[in-house]
Amino acid sequence: MVAGIIGAAGYAGSELCRLLASHAEVTELKLSSTSFEGQPLADIYPNLLKCVNAVLVNAEQVVEDSDVVFAALPAGASEAYAKQCHSKNIPFIDISADFRFDDDGETYAAWYGKPYTEPQLHSESVYGLPEMNRQKIKDAACKGGAIIGNPGCYPTSITLGAMPALKLGIAAGDGTIIADSASGITGGGREPNRSYHFPECSDSVSPYKVGCHRHTPEISRNFSIIENRLLKPRHVIFTPHLVPMNRGILSTIYIPLKSDIAHSTPPRPQSSTVQKNLERVHGLYTDFYKNEYFIRVLPLGTYAAASRVRQSNYCDISVHIDQSGSMLIITSAIDNMVKGAAGQAVQNMNIIFGFKENTGLQAIPAAF
Amino acid sequence: MVAGIIGAAGYAGSELCRLLASHAEVTELKLSSTSFEGQPLADIYPNLLKCVNAVLVNAEQVVEDSDVVFAALPAGASEAYAKQCHSKNIPFIDISADFRFDDDGETYAAWYGKPYTEPQLHSESVYGLPEMNRQKIKDAACKGGAIIGNPGCYPTSITLGAMPALKLGIAAGDGTIIADSASGITGGGREPNRSYHFPECSDSVSPYKVGCHRHTPEISRNFSIIENRLLKPRHVIFTPHLVPMNRGILSTIYIPLKSDIAHSTPPRPQSSTVQKNLERVHGLYTDFYKNEYFIRVLPLGTYAAASRVRQSNYCDISVHIDQSGSMLIITSAIDNMVKGAAGQAVQNMNIIFGFKENTGLQAIPAAF
Amino acid sequence: MVAGIIGAAGYAGSELCRLLASHAEVTELKLSSTSFEGQPLADIYPNLLKCVNAVLVNAEQVVEDSDVVFAALPAGASEAYAKQCHSKNIPFIDISADFRFDDDGETYAAWYGKPYTEPQLHSESVYGLPEMNRQKIKDAACKGGAIIGNPGCYPTSITLGAMPALKLGIAAGDGTIIADSASGITGGGREPNRSYHFPECSDSVSPYKVGCHRHTPEISRNFSIIENRLLKPRHVIFTPHLVPMNRGILSTIYIPLKSDIAHSTPPRPQSSTVQKNLERVHGLYTDFYKNEYFIRVLPLGTYAAASRVRQSNYCDISVHIDQSGSMLIITSAIDNMVKGAAGQAVQNMNIIFGFKENTGLQAIPAAF
Amino acid sequence: MVAGIIGAAGYAGSELCRLLASHAEVTELKLSSTSFEGQPLADIYPNLLKCVNAVLVNAEQVVEDSDVVFAALPAGASEAYAKQCHSKNIPFIDISADFRFDDDGETYAAWYGKPYTEPQLHSESVYGLPEMNRQKIKDAACKGGAIIGNPGCYPTSITLGAMPALKLGIAAGDGTIIADSASGITGGGREPNRSYHFPECSDSVSPYKVGCHRHTPEISRNFSIIENRLLKPRHVIFTPHLVPMNRGILSTIYIPLKSDIAHSTPPRPQSSTVQKNLERVHGLYTDFYKNEYFIRVLPLGTYAAASRVRQSNYCDISVHIDQSGSMLIITSAIDNMVKGAAGQAVQNMNIIFGFKENTGLQAIPAAF
Repeated sequence: MVAGIIGAAGYAGSELCRLLASHAEVTELKLSSTSFEGQPLADIYPNLLKCVNAVLVNAEQVVEDSDVVFAALPAGASEAYAKQCHSKNIPFIDISADFRFDDDGETYAAWYGKPYTEPQLHSESVYGLPEMNRQKIKDAACKGGAIIGNPGCYPTSITLGAMPALKLGIAAGDGTIIADSASGITGGGREPNRSYHFPECSDSVSPYKVGCHRHTPEISRNFSIIENRLLKPRHVIFTPHLVPMNRGILSTIYIPLKSDIAHSTPPRPQSSTVQKNLERVHGLYTDFYKNEYFIRVLPLGTYAAASRVRQSNYCDISVHIDQSGSMLIITSAIDNMVKGAAGQAVQNMNIIFGFKENTGLQAIPAAF
Repeated sequence: MVAGIIGAAGYAGSELCRLLASHAEVTELKLSSTSFEGQPLADIYPNLLKCVNAVLVNAEQVVEDSDVVFAALPAGASEAYAKQCHSKNIPFIDISADFRFDDDGETYAAWYGKPYTEPQLHSESVYGLPEMNRQKIKDAACKGGAIIGNPGCYPTSITLGAMPALKLGIAAGDGTIIADSASGITGGGREPNRSYHFPECSDSVSPYKVGCHRHTPEISRNFSIIENRLLKPRHVIFTPHLVPMNRGILSTIYIPLKSDIAHSTPPRPQSSTVQKNLERVHGLYTDFYKNEYFIRVLPLGTYAAASRVRQSNYCDISVHIDQSGSMLIITSAIDNMVKGAAGQAVQNMNIIFGFKENTGLQAIPAAF
Repeated sequence: MVAGIIGAAGYAGSELCRLLASHAEVTELKLSSTSFEGQPLADIYPNLLKCVNAVLVNAEQVVEDSDVVFAALPAGASEAYAKQCHSKNIPFIDISADFRFDDDGETYAAWYGKPYTEPQLHSESVYGLPEMNRQKIKDAACKGGAIIGNPGCYPTSITLGAMPALKLGIAAGDGTIIADSASGITGGGREPNRSYHFPECSDSVSPYKVGCHRHTPEISRNFSIIENRLLKPRHVIFTPHLVPMNRGILSTIYIPLKSDIAHSTPPRPQSSTVQKNLERVHGLYTDFYKNEYFIRVLPLGTYAAASRVRQSNYCDISVHIDQSGSMLIITSAIDNMVKGAAGQAVQNMNIIFGFKENTGLQAIPAAF
Repeated sequence: MVAGIIGAAGYAGSELCRLLASHAEVTELKLSSTSFEGQPLADIYPNLLKCVNAVLVNAEQVVEDSDVVFAALPAGASEAYAKQCHSKNIPFIDISADFRFDDDGETYAAWYGKPYTEPQLHSESVYGLPEMNRQKIKDAACKGGAIIGNPGCYPTSITLGAMPALKLGIAAGDGTIIADSASGITGGGREPNRSYHFPECSDSVSPYKVGCHRHTPEISRNFSIIENRLLKPRHVIFTPHLVPMNRGILSTIYIPLKSDIAHSTPPRPQSSTVQKNLERVHGLYTDFYKNEYFIRVLPLGTYAAASRVRQSNYCDISVHIDQSGSMLIITSAIDNMVKGAAGQAVQNMNIIFGFKENTGLQAIPAAF
């Protein structure tokens, strides 16, 4: 099978190449890049020497020759290719934000600053978070020409972390959910930029886009679907930070609990009642994800760490409760470039084509 | 003036040496260490070669010979030295947690696992956060033999970040305050340990002690004093994380606002009403700290970053509001070893002795 | 086939587990650890959760149950296990230094401070650098009960970098060869230690064991075999440095050239004559390694970088000549834990068992 | 006294601002920047908020108003300002390479690709390495309108490391000297660039410009002056590497020794003869620099480390000999932005104006 990537020379695109080059069902890669057309990808990524031999062509050739097309383009550039693939019945998996919202385009316009040019396509597209939408992805595959909006990296880690609490009614009915996330620098892409210049971001930690990051409506929308409260979405606050590591996202998610435990005044360490509730919730989480290959609910006492999912498609989740017993604190770790982008896109491809869901995604994370 | 440090060979102790060695009013250092008695400090810290020549002696000699005594010891080891200094009218500044609570010892016992051995001393001690307690520190100095409990690193960053909102009534009367913090690895001290072993913590980010960190009651206590609600302290949640940098703490603090703005459904970018409120709150913060040398309320649009206060005694604060307008989000950055430990201790010494408060603390942070 | 690892809980051992768990010919892992016997390996390495389920047993069971035994132990502990395996005709691949020298033990004793306890075994053992000794490894495999001394990490990078120059007579007949290497911190192993404590080694670079590192005689011995000058080995200088990265070794190797080019006085940029010689030598290197799967001689103008071989078994080599034309400067990059340890051990296993040499070692290095 | 900086918004310029803002003799800063004219420097460097209030003006105003002028500009831009200052008798300290060569411009043209436009100025300029040229700097100051070519960062570390061996005749008369250096990323300046993009350089180490770095002729020239062999300079090889740290250079310098010790065959650990020679050479180094405030010859057994001179003007030197006794191995550490640029420029200013040489340069390096 020929896998095509439009925008193969960016970080997400190159990561897709790396994963697909080892995929048992993929026999050939067809790669495009506007900036580097005509060059071997390994000229730009010497790490791929002797591993990926493909020469970059243009996007049209990719659409022409591929059995599945991935797009790893800036926001706003995918619709035209989605349309072409859809009309040719070629599955199209978009890593940008263009197909993450299936409404009339209002949310996208409000946060991304432009309207849809092909509004009808969006009613056909599916949000590609398999652990939430697996059946919808399969259904779209059956119809042919599936268009998948691959989730954002932050929403992936946050939605997977919060889903059991929201779905099982562990969360209190109404409180605000705060997601405080830390991302590695590859999240900023391949283009050099002051914010990602080594001396500006190494040996530091800093927030950015506080109160205004575009992933906020995606997280909120996911929560409201999971809780089935579409008309009155829960209030969500999302704060991203940059930390000096290459890959990975760690999200710390604060979810108010249904609880009538009175707070100690002043605070005291966790009581055995809180401990018991923690064990109960941990059990619910473990059970909820027991059939999900890529989710690891960690044993109590083990903390999620970005390094332990590095280069893998796993999402590690650790479950905690605050000292008073009234707040569930979930930490969720993914590799932003794998489960948060290229790996999840391959997972979507596997579902669409009926391959084993972990085909090409069995990399075991290293300890260091 | 002779400055003494008990426990000079730990990280906080060595940082105190570095600062005091350049202090215009300090003519001599008297340093002790149990493990390295008899050795020059520069044998253990070659960075101090030609800069600090003192040889490590025992604690008794430090108490004997000093005009002010700092203790940088593990929890539970300071009371005996505090007693000696107090009885000899020597100001005693303790960097451990032993004198951060001035109650009857219940809170300390609950979180640190041991009772006070000298309970009467604690009623005399002062919590040494100058921006909150400057007058109390001065009063204690007047009486002689002041005992100062130097604040914890996390509580320093979090209290300074939240104080204006709490003091000026910007915060809603009752909601939970969440402080989500990231610390550099020096916070773990000088002793090698799996958690701080380079391959285990580099290129990663991970939470620790979620729901059970000992700084929680200190933060809660500070908030209740600032808001003057001692009997019913606000519910506080504190989550620390380790990030791969040497120094620094960045705290992101979520403070519910008095607000009747209705949330958008689904979320939309900040309205101009929210923007205006942000400007108003930013103005209040700026005004609140206008006379504080070490606090920098950053211009709107600039984010606090751990690197920009590195090796300085500054606390940088940036003010944000979430998209809905209902949550104040403060980020506060300090150097955990300076404003979070040794620098603040020197600031306390300056207040006690009537020196200019920034003496020896005028280091300008470097850009990188 | 059952693969056994004695010392599975160290860094090299855990890396072996990771590689062997994905190896197509390995059906079961048998792992031992003295410190953690009875615990699942994934308790100690949570990155292996759901990936490696084996529980740590004792070394005897490993020898009993395995078809091949790897030892990842401190120097001096492998001989007893080698003897057992040899007598049972089980191939034994030793990651320590115990079987890297096949002489009478004098060199080992001089540098490692202890004599061989089983001298006869060493005459049977083979130094397991496949690109240098492939046939010998195969021959040992034919005899049964092969004992392989897996090369040191530094000697691997340095020998592979210098081999074509020495073998093809590019190097001048007599000059000193200097190898200046930089290693990631995992080279120091899993045990916490001041030198590898994050605050001591991050944001820095420092040499260690200058003029006295134990890998020096291994490098010298390799050179003398390659050049066939056993009686008068070339003078070798080896200087290791620690750099703040997890994995990887980059060696810069200075090899005097046969050259009658006169030096400019003062130095001038490279002439076209030097350029041409560089192209010639680059061609010889490329040709020398053209059939070696794991060696990538980089195109002229591309520099070897530790990050580009991360988590792979590749050795990247870049070829340079100084401005005067009289010194060949080779830079050679490997992952110290893969080609420098566990990966090379698996490569040796593949050769011994007649598997395709890259089985289980086809990981494509990521760009970041 | 008013200190002016042309090009204050680059990394070296901003570091100069930081140092001069704390300098006891400097009462005002006059700063220029072409890109940011009209903005406060602290807008661009928020770390300087409340510390440096100056607004950026144009270069003409700097020359007009200053008592000393520093230039921190790209190569080829300093001559015009040097001419203006010289004619007005204002000392001019140039951080670029424009005044590092006082010959007829041939070397500069060969390596920097352009001729001098003001050749006569170069015969008046002095190479500003105080430990080598202190008297010449003073002499130029006496004449008025001194023009100082501040040394390159690599040549500073390498020349200081090799000087005693060359000056005292410890080095063998003729062999090649190899300097293998590692630099922090700030060496690449403030402009974002693929090579300094965090994901491309973190967690890695890589050489660059092997055999063709512009600092090579500067190093060679220094050596030939020190050894007084101008007509037949020693052959010098210089290889720079990038390591993932912000600041610092560590150079490992290989200097052949006058030695008739026969190499062991094969190599053996250092004999007591070699040890004794090491002690002798270490004594000579210590003595050579005994009056130099900024040079620290480390005790035997302590290795130079980039982190231990961070943010200071120190050069740390450690002395080693290889196992055979025939090669002196010096490691030399500086902060590339302080002793390698801005700090050395201030040191030159202090000499010119007759201030104590360490005025404004007494920062004690921190341990972490």
